[in-house]
Amino acid sequence: MEVSFDPGDLGALKSVGDEKQPDPGVVYDLLILGGGPAAMTAAVYAARKMMKVAVLTDEFGGQMGDTTEIENYMGFQMISGRELVEKFVEHMKSFNVPAAQGEKVKEVTHEGQVPPEGSYRTWHDGDRFKATLESGTAYTSQTVIMATGKRYKTLNIPGEKEFAGRGVSYCEICDAPFFKGKKVVVAGGGNSGFTAAMDLMRIAGDVTVINHSPGWKADRVLFDPVQKNPNVTLLDNHEIESIEGTTKVTAVHVVDNSSGEKKAIPADGVFVEIGGVPNSGPVRGLAKLTQYRELMIDCGCRTSVEGLFGAGDVTTVPYKQVVVSAGEGAKAALSAYEHLASRGML
Amino acid sequence: MEVSFDPGDLGALKSVGDEKQPDPGVVYDLLILGGGPAAMTAAVYAARKMMKVAVLTDEFGGQMGDTTEIENYMGFQMISGRELVEKFVEHMKSFNVPAAQGEKVKEVTHEGQVPPEGSYRTWHDGDRFKATLESGTAYTSQTVIMATGKRYKTLNIPGEKEFAGRGVSYCEICDAPFFKGKKVVVAGGGNSGFTAAMDLMRIAGDVTVINHSPGWKADRVLFDPVQKNPNVTLLDNHEIESIEGTTKVTAVHVVDNSSGEKKAIPADGVFVEIGGVPNSGPVRGLAKLTQYRELMIDCGCRTSVEGLFGAGDVTTVPYKQVVVSAGEGAKAALSAYEHLASRGML
Repeated sequence: MEVSFDPGDLGALKSVGDEKQPDPGVVYDLLILGGGPAAMTAAVYAARKMMKVAVLTDEFGGQMGDTTEIENYMGFQMISGRELVEKFVEHMKSFNVPAAQGEKVKEVTHEGQVPPEGSYRTWHDGDRFKATLESGTAYTSQTVIMATGKRYKTLNIPGEKEFAGRGVSYCEICDAPFFKGKKVVVAGGGNSGFTAAMDLMRIAGDVTVINHSPGWKADRVLFDPVQKNPNVTLLDNHEIESIEGTTKVTAVHVVDNSSGEKKAIPADGVFVEIGGVPNSGPVRGLAKLTQYRELMIDCGCRTSVEGLFGAGDVTTVPYKQVVVSAGEGAKAALSAYEHLASRGML
Repeated sequence: MEVSFDPGDLGALKSVGDEKQPDPGVVYDLLILGGGPAAMTAAVYAARKMMKVAVLTDEFGGQMGDTTEIENYMGFQMISGRELVEKFVEHMKSFNVPAAQGEKVKEVTHEGQVPPEGSYRTWHDGDRFKATLESGTAYTSQTVIMATGKRYKTLNIPGEKEFAGRGVSYCEICDAPFFKGKKVVVAGGGNSGFTAAMDLMRIAGDVTVINHSPGWKADRVLFDPVQKNPNVTLLDNHEIESIEGTTKVTAVHVVDNSSGEKKAIPADGVFVEIGGVPNSGPVRGLAKLTQYRELMIDCGCRTSVEGLFGAGDVTTVPYKQVVVSAGEGAKAALSAYEHLASRGML
């Protein structure tokens, strides 16, 4: 498991500090936006292709750095998220990729011909992307990889932050196996909540699913088998007021919104499955996003804008996992290389 | 770099031996065919989902095990293919996945309703896949992941096998960065050869591309920039007769097929880029393949047959890299899980 949101945890790691700085006066072959596993893998692949590459990120690690234990990144049977971030950062640094840290990218713009109304943009020789940081500093590049990740929604209740990584989880695929035969609560009455519940009812001993408003929103194909399962209790229209614990989570306090009745539910784990928001803001208006704001990519990590690629949790890739994001980062960098090489732009 | 084909290299590793054996009498939730990074990652993900899973492979490691040095699998700045295979195998074994080794799968059949002519198969309750080994032993499962990899074509000339891993390479993305400023020969006059040449002309100091038959087959978009590059020499209609070396490759001996003239070309590296054959034989006739025999998958690793998934080098995934295959294996296992869970088949 699990998740810890204390930004102090990673200390110096999240501002590695001694990379070369990117140069706003240079036209890069590739700018990589983000600092998680997708971004760092893309940086290694681009560097090995001898592309002129730079990374722009507010911090390194992404959500990987907030994870206490990871047992499904191949090669490491059990490693803390922090240690794995350290290994990825060291790996990237060994290729001397310039990186600007500490600031988010505000906007990516495309300095080229305006495409015809209603059509996808197509590539034009001499097109340039401009990535502008919040401070106003801007970098120019022939291609861009968006690997800016996703942030999960939180409940914002007492105990949630305190027990993140000690029973509170935001990633069911990652953490469900750590709760074998235990009591868990799932916060969320939509498809995310019921996908988690479907998995947990087979692994954990006792699952309570809590919906904060009246009426379950999950599709029937998910809802029906969960409702029928004897290990599952459904609480509709209940609010989780706080999470209680000692060194780990022990209970969840809920209130029935219709009756006002309060009770405590004993629990070893709380899975917060109320959705997340992809950090696709910088390319909103530029590239095609889904209704959930995921950056649409094809299997080669190409977006609707030629020269703009996407990798990892910010995209439509189906699973948000470290090893998946690393693979996607490699693909995105190789696709960006191919884009430039096949046009004689390197 | 590089590649070594001595099967003795991996010794005991390639027959790990002490796993639980799969049971032909059981209906598995998931059978994973293959033993490379895609297959092993899928096994870990399936085990963590508590699926009834087994692996069928002739050996573990795949082409990863034939690689001398790997510097682009994130987390390990430089590791031998053999060591990385060992880590993947240990990781998989820690989840006690039953594995049958030593034999190839001959055929995968689908025991279900015959789909309408010309249409994709669709899922039917109670459908089963049967995977039959060369010996005739058969295993039954609700879903299958094909992760059987790809074998590269070889030149079959003196010196090729001897210097595999010591100058002879079959993977340009993997090995080009090890030849900075050196002399290299590319065997192959098609798109693979020119893709490699395009990369190598920027990295290596001197590139000779050799086409064994008259007339270059590469597309103009690849051919033109390579031909124009002053670092590149093109030899059309030349046969490579042998590869010479001491501890490493030193030269390539060629004959001009039209004049019969022979010469030696000094070289530190030989990139054999004459294509490869995906090991898709077991599902030929069952699932859609491309003209290159790659198993067609979507971004969720789904094939044209519901319940059949694909991952890694046997599929249409654009790049054949360890980290990409690992990511694809994770996706395929999670897609197989979702397929079963959403239909109440677990």
